[in-house]
Amino acid sequence: MSRSTRRAFFISDGTGITVEMFGHSLLTQFEEIEFQQTVIPFVDSTEKARDCATQINAAATAGSRPLVFTTLVNAEIRDVIRRADCLLLDFFERFLDPLEAELGTRSSHAIGRSHGRVGNKEYRDRIDAVNFTLAHDDGMSHKELDMADVILVGVSRSGKTPTSLYLALQFGVKAANYPLIPEDFARGALPPALLERKERLFGLTISPERLAEIRHERRPGSKYASIENCRHEVEQAEAMMRRHEIPWLNSTTRSIEEIAAKVLHEVKLERHGGF
Amino acid sequence: MSRSTRRAFFISDGTGITVEMFGHSLLTQFEEIEFQQTVIPFVDSTEKARDCATQINAAATAGSRPLVFTTLVNAEIRDVIRRADCLLLDFFERFLDPLEAELGTRSSHAIGRSHGRVGNKEYRDRIDAVNFTLAHDDGMSHKELDMADVILVGVSRSGKTPTSLYLALQFGVKAANYPLIPEDFARGALPPALLERKERLFGLTISPERLAEIRHERRPGSKYASIENCRHEVEQAEAMMRRHEIPWLNSTTRSIEEIAAKVLHEVKLERHGGF
Repeated sequence: MSRSTRRAFFISDGTGITVEMFGHSLLTQFEEIEFQQTVIPFVDSTEKARDCATQINAAATAGSRPLVFTTLVNAEIRDVIRRADCLLLDFFERFLDPLEAELGTRSSHAIGRSHGRVGNKEYRDRIDAVNFTLAHDDGMSHKELDMADVILVGVSRSGKTPTSLYLALQFGVKAANYPLIPEDFARGALPPALLERKERLFGLTISPERLAEIRHERRPGSKYASIENCRHEVEQAEAMMRRHEIPWLNSTTRSIEEIAAKVLHEVKLERHGGF
Repeated sequence: MSRSTRRAFFISDGTGITVEMFGHSLLTQFEEIEFQQTVIPFVDSTEKARDCATQINAAATAGSRPLVFTTLVNAEIRDVIRRADCLLLDFFERFLDPLEAELGTRSSHAIGRSHGRVGNKEYRDRIDAVNFTLAHDDGMSHKELDMADVILVGVSRSGKTPTSLYLALQFGVKAANYPLIPEDFARGALPPALLERKERLFGLTISPERLAEIRHERRPGSKYASIENCRHEVEQAEAMMRRHEIPWLNSTTRSIEEIAAKVLHEVKLERHGGF
């Protein structure tokens, strides 16, 4: 039997990033249904809300109205959407009331606050972290390595670069990364520049089968991508992490978000995300 | 008068990224209060929940109990937290019931679903996009530029690189970027390789004052950072965008998230984020 389908809209007066993440994490709890998803950001006027309502009504079919997730701070805009043929799940409406009661104050109902102020310290930290991470990708530079919050080590294509960038962009963490290569294995030790900062090191490993798959996409049929070579490199890398007592994680079945959050948690780094 | 302060906890059985974004966007609506925030991810057992409850109780003071935002799919774990001295705002509890009723089915209550499956197409698209974006940062390569979903142009330090990386990591968008330099202004036109893909171009500009500030941090006292030079470059860059009729945006007061979402919206790119 094919999975049933349902339309879902994510509507925001800002970027739509929060509402999409919010709605998506709920929808993943309903595996047997396929959701056709539409994000509509920057709905900051009743006129734009009316356009949304038209789209929602057009998507409604007999017995299957669309799900509409919203983060709308303006009640007037929200009411326009509510009158459409949908199940409305508004994120602010449900939570602002109990928060206002608890805090004994009114919320500002200001649009577009979610992602922090540009120019504040948190925000500048994130940009600095991105620049640092780019300058220290793939072992490019050992300069200022003492400024790194974390240094990821692992064989080529074990997930170090995307994880480093995510740590920088999302959490403002200065993440360097260093690829373990045959020279390191021959030497039987990490470079001294890294060992001096052992408490900042974190290892990523991966199953040899998955690694071979990823490497074959980049260099089909190469020795680099062969399963024998991948097995050898992974074995050597894991032995080295054990020898140096570096905490490590297998990235094979984990998303960038999970790997990044685990690294933060294990290295006990503070999250100073700007979102 | 100093702002009042309040403790806030973000507790998740997964990465904590969704709950932190969710709670943060609500708290930014209460500007007059300073929130001391703690994220506790990977709370996937009642034992870990009891540790959280202890932390919450220790943070409670007379007349000021902590705010606790949670995304916990397991009711037993949630109940442990609920018994702590706090205002509990659980994201799943409030929304899963109406969703189950609407969809006529039970949710799976599976932990750690939020960020998508590793190895599915969406996820691979994101990794491919990150690799593409890194290879096409700062005009590094015109190779395979026809595969770019978007090409950001703008003067050095106008926000192109962080925006490109965010587009790739968050939305799986292949974003190249190209810096406008004096040679381009002297020529009075963009390089032919870019003009061939004009429908994918998007410009970023910035106020000369902010640009000078950012550049002074990197190269203090340089001609590159001088306000005169910044004024000249920004003027030339904006004239060029107008001449080529490229859509553009001023990044001065916008967060990476806002810029990225605006670019997607304007270039009418599909979001295929993996979160």
